Amino acid sequence: MESLTTESNNNADGGFFLANCREHLCSALDRLRCTVVGFVGKLAKIARDDPRRVAHSLKVGLALTLVSVLYYVTPLFNGWGDSVIWAVITVVVVMEFTVGATLSRGLNRTFATLVAVFLAVGAHMAANLCGENGEPILLSVFVFLVGSAATFSRFIPELKARYDYGVMIFILTFAMVAVSSYRVDELLEFAHERVTTIAVGVAICLFTTLFIFPIWAGEDLHKLAAGNLDKLAEFLEGMESECSRENSPCENLEGKAFLQVYNAVLNSKVREDSLCTFAKWEPIHGKFRFRHPWSQYQKLGALCRQCASSMEALASCVVVLKKSQYPEANPELCLKIRATCGAMSLHSAKALRGLSLAVRTMTLPCQTNDMSTATKAASDFRTQLSEDAALLQVMHAAVVASLLSDVVIQIERITESTSKLAQLARFTNPERTRSAVVIHIED
Amino acid sequence: MESLTTESNNNADGGFFLANCREHLCSALDRLRCTVVGFVGKLAKIARDDPRRVAHSLKVGLALTLVSVLYYVTPLFNGWGDSVIWAVITVVVVMEFTVGATLSRGLNRTFATLVAVFLAVGAHMAANLCGENGEPILLSVFVFLVGSAATFSRFIPELKARYDYGVMIFILTFAMVAVSSYRVDELLEFAHERVTTIAVGVAICLFTTLFIFPIWAGEDLHKLAAGNLDKLAEFLEGMESECSRENSPCENLEGKAFLQVYNAVLNSKVREDSLCTFAKWEPIHGKFRFRHPWSQYQKLGALCRQCASSMEALASCVVVLKKSQYPEANPELCLKIRATCGAMSLHSAKALRGLSLAVRTMTLPCQTNDMSTATKAASDFRTQLSEDAALLQVMHAAVVASLLSDVVIQIERITESTSKLAQLARFTNPERTRSAVVIHIED
Repeated sequence: MESLTTESNNNADGGFFLANCREHLCSALDRLRCTVVGFVGKLAKIARDDPRRVAHSLKVGLALTLVSVLYYVTPLFNGWGDSVIWAVITVVVVMEFTVGATLSRGLNRTFATLVAVFLAVGAHMAANLCGENGEPILLSVFVFLVGSAATFSRFIPELKARYDYGVMIFILTFAMVAVSSYRVDELLEFAHERVTTIAVGVAICLFTTLFIFPIWAGEDLHKLAAGNLDKLAEFLEGMESECSRENSPCENLEGKAFLQVYNAVLNSKVREDSLCTFAKWEPIHGKFRFRHPWSQYQKLGALCRQCASSMEALASCVVVLKKSQYPEANPELCLKIRATCGAMSLHSAKALRGLSLAVRTMTLPCQTNDMSTATKAASDFRTQLSEDAALLQVMHAAVVASLLSDVVIQIERITESTSKLAQLARFTNPERTRSAVVIHIED
Repeated sequence: MESLTTESNNNADGGFFLANCREHLCSALDRLRCTVVGFVGKLAKIARDDPRRVAHSLKVGLALTLVSVLYYVTPLFNGWGDSVIWAVITVVVVMEFTVGATLSRGLNRTFATLVAVFLAVGAHMAANLCGENGEPILLSVFVFLVGSAATFSRFIPELKARYDYGVMIFILTFAMVAVSSYRVDELLEFAHERVTTIAVGVAICLFTTLFIFPIWAGEDLHKLAAGNLDKLAEFLEGMESECSRENSPCENLEGKAFLQVYNAVLNSKVREDSLCTFAKWEPIHGKFRFRHPWSQYQKLGALCRQCASSMEALASCVVVLKKSQYPEANPELCLKIRATCGAMSLHSAKALRGLSLAVRTMTLPCQTNDMSTATKAASDFRTQLSEDAALLQVMHAAVVASLLSDVVIQIERITESTSKLAQLARFTNPERTRSAVVIHIED
């Protein structure tokens, strides 16, 4: 009887154990499924956000496959031998997202290799004159000097902006050819193979990037400029609709999308600069002729960012204004100001939309009266306000004080953040250190 | 007599020609000298600005010299043969300015090579099963798939931030080993040589970068945080001295240095982000322990930039205020506001200097009353102002209108800049295009 009970207990235990296991397994599988689904969703989003990313990935695969043909076809391989590997490497490091970036890297790599090979062969010949023992010493001195000098030149801002990769490849090739010259008998052949295989790799990259679904940095830069103008217009349209609304002034605006739109403009500098650098390398394409004024886009971008930064100040003021519940003390003046703001926003937004359309279609901006209307509204408002000089003076001083008190609030936050840092990084206690110093002096 | 005159004429002409030549030569030499002196001066300035740049350049030269010893010493060379070249290449591409950046690139390169070699050897074995004809086809398919997928993965932001270089080296090594496997008989030896030579190159880089004059990204990030706090304090000290001065309010402030100091803080984001990425790779050094809270520096930096952006708005207000010549309409209130501004600036600046000192010395920030005094001055001012509700309401509305009219002025500049772009890029005339379209429709 007892043994039976034990057995049935064991059976129950075993069943429980199995059920438990199955449950654990199921939940683990479920978690895994969730992770995989989340990851795939993320990948799909990256592809949807810019489908050209998929095209670029496939183009890199294609270029690699093309270059590997050099290996598989025996006559081609026999021409270069093992050096074909440089063509493969070139394809991987030179293929970039935009045509301009690929061209920039490709040309940098080709010319830097060419120059370095010439110099390195010269260094080899000079070192050769010093005999068996002197050769490695002289080669080392050359490599040290050229490596140090070229590395230092990478700190020159003008050189860094356009030719940084070229200088790196110059150091690499010089060191490689100069050092190998001690062991390689056919140095000229070695150098020649390196230059030609790199040129072949660059040619394959340029073919893939130029003729199969080309992605132009210049086009992106052009679209970025138009997009920035649109975003500034969007902010002003939002302002206009707020001004024209009759309802309660104490509404909370903080969540409104239009009050955040300037952030994208403020953060566009890095992308704009790199697109501009690459656009300058690109040949004529689409509507962009030879010597298209790419630098002008940077100037326009700088002005847009300055405007966005004023909008940032404006947004914080608007949020405060809409939040506070003032007694209606001077309804007439307030109504007037509101109408002025509405007019300024409306016409400025229209003017910006016109500019954005002009940039997009590459047509001359239409001559409209929007900007003059907005400017007139602004100067009228200034004149009106200056009639009441006492108000104007106090207002300006009060604005400074009010902005300064904003700064004070932010510095309080900075103080908290620094204290958090001190705590996390376990800063020492100055009291203890000071008393230690005193004791030390008393000694 | 005639011939004599001609001769003397000729002589004079020749003398004139020679003098002319000498003059040209002198001026050309002078220009050359000026260019050279200017260039050398520029290089000297780059070196003076940060002497560690010279140290870094010499370290790269040293590392290259060290790695070239592998070539010159025969027993070392015989171990690896031509593959020693990978060590040289590794030194050039891995050596970066800071320890963190070098470590990040070195470890990325080593691990990516290791993983890629394993995968590529697996791909070779799979392709080998398909016979002589099937092998290149299957290898091409593998290279295409792996190349495309890995390239696409470089668009994932989290991967791009820390492992972008690793993924590139993964593609490079996989393509190289997989494609070579068609020709190389001793694939495992080839793969083994690549992994070990790269490891040796990385080891030489780490030795040079860690033990000879190490440059720590973490230290730079720490100094950047303290420097930003100091710059904010400098601005407020300038404000304070302006508030306490009794003389004319219509002074031009535009050239004052303290009104530009926030710009450096605003532009610190890119440098801060890259230093933070590299600092996370660095081992324990100096006062920085294991798991030092590097991300907290980014949070502090974001708050500092927000404060600097408020200061930008404040600076433009102050410039306008000091420029305008108001009648003294409400001297009592103005004096009060000025005193409040002075107090807020003084105490905030003191608090910031205290925080900067605490960060620099890594001691806990001293508990002072500065921040509470500044906050009290700010809230007192608000209370005072809110007693006059009518003024407050009009003031806030007028501030919004005034900021908006600044925006209008900036949009005018944007309009001009876009017109300049349209002119330089020869945008077409919409009128003509439109009439052309009309004609086309009429056809």
